[in-house]
Amino acid sequence: MILRIAHIGIAVKNIESSKDVFSKIFEIESPYSEHVPTEKVNISYLPVGDTLIELLEGTDAASTLNKFIDKKGEGIHHISLEVDDIKFEVTRLKKLGFKFVNEEPSIGGDGFIVVFLHPKSTNGVLIELCQKK
Amino acid sequence: MILRIAHIGIAVKNIESSKDVFSKIFEIESPYSEHVPTEKVNISYLPVGDTLIELLEGTDAASTLNKFIDKKGEGIHHISLEVDDIKFEVTRLKKLGFKFVNEEPSIGGDGFIVVFLHPKSTNGVLIELCQKK
Repeated sequence: MILRIAHIGIAVKNIESSKDVFSKIFEIESPYSEHVPTEKVNISYLPVGDTLIELLEGTDAASTLNKFIDKKGEGIHHISLEVDDIKFEVTRLKKLGFKFVNEEPSIGGDGFIVVFLHPKSTNGVLIELCQKK
Repeated sequence: MILRIAHIGIAVKNIESSKDVFSKIFEIESPYSEHVPTEKVNISYLPVGDTLIELLEGTDAASTLNKFIDKKGEGIHHISLEVDDIKFEVTRLKKLGFKFVNEEPSIGGDGFIVVFLHPKSTNGVLIELCQKK
């Protein structure tokens, strides 16, 4: 079951200057930040309602995030949906014909396990499913 | 004050086939749809948590939505933030140096008045501010 939009991920080139931009919009003084080595990204979290804006900065030129920026420029990168049972949802969506970027859930940021639907089967939208560990 | 993410707008070429795709993901049988002539779009709304996914199909080749699809392809188009006082927020953000696509709020979908921040001042993210009429 899909519970809520856990976050909206935004690909940025320089997380420090972007933190400044989005902190002004959302009036949040010091967003919590962390480094996620498995994804080669730095992340800053800005809470809004029952969801978050996530600013994502690649820490390696070869990261998929920097490849996205090279191709499409900075901007909205993905939507993350919190689910109660990630394995159940992967099975359910596969049966309906959806494709996944990775077959097995992996460790994402902020204490979640995550898996990505392939944007080819979702009108160009990169959708992450996530479940609290 | 920013209250919540009102919706995430997704630009699609064919709203009927996209409704089918996203209805399966979110397990929503018949999303509510409407035509917004001022924006030259058809919109379908899929509720998730305290926000919505909005599917947007341009009804005119010259619509800004179809220009977006021509340039970037289908995908996430904008984030909409519900505010309690849209004129106050426009003034606040202008003072902080943010640019707007349109200077005056206009009538958007689903009974809201809306205004767009220019993506050049927000790391490529098109952000709509909206207020209930």
